Amino acid sequence: MKVVTCVAPVNIAVIKYWGKRDEELILPINDSISASLSTDIMCAKTTIMASPLFKENKFWLNGKEQTFDSPRLSNCIKAIRARCDGALPQFTWNISICSENNFPTAAGLASSAAGYACLVYALAQLYEIKGEISDIARLGSGSACRSIYGGWVQWHKGDLPTGADSIATQIAPADHWPEMRIIVLVVNDCRKKYSSTSGMKKTTETSTLIQHRAKNVVDQRIKTITKAILNKDFESFAETTMKDSNQMHAICMDTFPPCVYMNDTSHAIVNLVHSYNEYRKGQKVAYTFDAGPNACIYLLQSEVEQFISVVNYVFPQLAGVEYYRGLSLPNKQLDQKIVAELRLTPYEAGMLKYIIYTKVGAGPQELDHPSEHLLQDNGLLKQ
Amino acid sequence: MKVVTCVAPVNIAVIKYWGKRDEELILPINDSISASLSTDIMCAKTTIMASPLFKENKFWLNGKEQTFDSPRLSNCIKAIRARCDGALPQFTWNISICSENNFPTAAGLASSAAGYACLVYALAQLYEIKGEISDIARLGSGSACRSIYGGWVQWHKGDLPTGADSIATQIAPADHWPEMRIIVLVVNDCRKKYSSTSGMKKTTETSTLIQHRAKNVVDQRIKTITKAILNKDFESFAETTMKDSNQMHAICMDTFPPCVYMNDTSHAIVNLVHSYNEYRKGQKVAYTFDAGPNACIYLLQSEVEQFISVVNYVFPQLAGVEYYRGLSLPNKQLDQKIVAELRLTPYEAGMLKYIIYTKVGAGPQELDHPSEHLLQDNGLLKQ
Repeated sequence: MKVVTCVAPVNIAVIKYWGKRDEELILPINDSISASLSTDIMCAKTTIMASPLFKENKFWLNGKEQTFDSPRLSNCIKAIRARCDGALPQFTWNISICSENNFPTAAGLASSAAGYACLVYALAQLYEIKGEISDIARLGSGSACRSIYGGWVQWHKGDLPTGADSIATQIAPADHWPEMRIIVLVVNDCRKKYSSTSGMKKTTETSTLIQHRAKNVVDQRIKTITKAILNKDFESFAETTMKDSNQMHAICMDTFPPCVYMNDTSHAIVNLVHSYNEYRKGQKVAYTFDAGPNACIYLLQSEVEQFISVVNYVFPQLAGVEYYRGLSLPNKQLDQKIVAELRLTPYEAGMLKYIIYTKVGAGPQELDHPSEHLLQDNGLLKQ
Repeated sequence: MKVVTCVAPVNIAVIKYWGKRDEELILPINDSISASLSTDIMCAKTTIMASPLFKENKFWLNGKEQTFDSPRLSNCIKAIRARCDGALPQFTWNISICSENNFPTAAGLASSAAGYACLVYALAQLYEIKGEISDIARLGSGSACRSIYGGWVQWHKGDLPTGADSIATQIAPADHWPEMRIIVLVVNDCRKKYSSTSGMKKTTETSTLIQHRAKNVVDQRIKTITKAILNKDFESFAETTMKDSNQMHAICMDTFPPCVYMNDTSHAIVNLVHSYNEYRKGQKVAYTFDAGPNACIYLLQSEVEQFISVVNYVFPQLAGVEYYRGLSLPNKQLDQKIVAELRLTPYEAGMLKYIIYTKVGAGPQELDHPSEHLLQDNGLLKQ
């Protein structure tokens, strides 16, 4: 019997992936860049157990048994096994997989990216694979390839029709810019959700702007933000991040029928960030939005106290929820000068569901202690 | 003494004007197309009086006296007088101008387009000018040039740096497509308003998509929708109208900081229209949005009863407001089959402020009856 348990990070893109050139192989129409977030705060966790005694393959996701035959799961397993030494005993054994997210999927954060990165990383440990695996994670969920590395990561769109060069590489490790922090503002929203997979597909089919973005806009932004990250130039980083988030949502709006992920609360956050930056006379805080209404705010540690005091004033919380999650947030009295100068007025309470405070972190890791395993020795779910 | 009173229509663009190539001359980066709406329901009305006895020029807008020296007003008057026979006695007289909209500016409908078209048309009557005046209306407010004509109107961007060829022409008169109706859903919104002038300027300066739209997208849409209008092909008209509204708002979102005019209610209307069209198995209803959250719905008369019954179900009205305005709306019981098939559920009451029902109409007209004048014989405001 052989067992491995791993964790893998969530990643938040600053240059967005939106649009595939190959639906099957999940090949994007442009490069993208993200930071992987600390697995101490948010992560996917996966245990894989292989045993000659298992009669069948099994798969649990967040406590519920799933079919083992989903195309994306099968593609990942097939691709991993194609790189594995067939002489290993576990190569022929059946496996049990158990995968979990330690953060609510309601957070609207790309849980599938962390999940598939973790699955593929764990499979690679199980089958003792060295070398590139981000292209395999990509087969599970495009942006999962970026969660294979820690720190700042670029997903290269690649040119080959096989997708062999559509891989992720690390631009800089997590400790390169240690002051960087991320605040996730989880927005209350009761509208129906559109999946990013189908949204992206519809955009590629119907938008008359998306190809222009992919061919004429993104490359320059990739260069600008890479330089900003390497030089720790927050102003340039922030401006490029916000512009690219806006452009992704512009492209979604140019879809027919339009794909709208941001809501009035999201736009209220956008306006607040721009007002705050005007007050601070520079781009001190940057928002970015994915396929949902929640804002991911990038900012330096030195800005957190003041910015969060403003957020708390403008978005009053409802009593009785675990509102602050993650790293402990500084609790600063709001500077009334900001309220006056920006003419801030509070919205009704409850527009934000909760707030997660976190930072850039490392890539996937194997957890050795047996207590970490999500499966019992018989390959079934632990209670 | 000489006096003229005129009315001019509001126009609703189906191919949008967004972005200038010359701020001073108000020259657009692309052609646009609109319908002028019936002046029986919504119009601007202007009285201009000239007299050798007037000591000074005067200007009232919606009952409030304004400076006569605003650059846009001055530009229009200068340009009109340059085309006038200087031997006319009134050429040397001072003038009083009084302008009103008969619809609340809160409707967020382009009141300045109707207003400047009316002003320039009335000036042309006063100074007995024949021939092109849409280029002069354009100097007041870009889209005002389209309100100089009735029916379906195209504003040609023109190529000359002087703007002499940036004029409006009629594609088809109001009675060409007599079944066409327009429903304006006026949305409750308490956010601060951005002017379209400053929004457009910011977009032109910062969007990396707008030039691609102007150079590579709009021309084809102008051809498609002109053909659709001439052939009375509602399906093609509707699809092009909705796509172009979405693209204008996409471009606004790609502005930095982003310009957001639509709100959650606007997007709820968009979703409802797409659901309704899916139920009807064709594009039977088309939305379009300008620089505000209100939806303008284009649809044929035969569709009004059923569509409005659905709107009334999904957007319950608050009691105690004059909710239906304009043409009399048919009152049909909602077909429960639609509710079931589209899984419609009502939103909270009061998301819509009121509904205006109107149709395509004629261009500016002079009103001869003395009771129509907004000014007394002494050139001062009537009470």
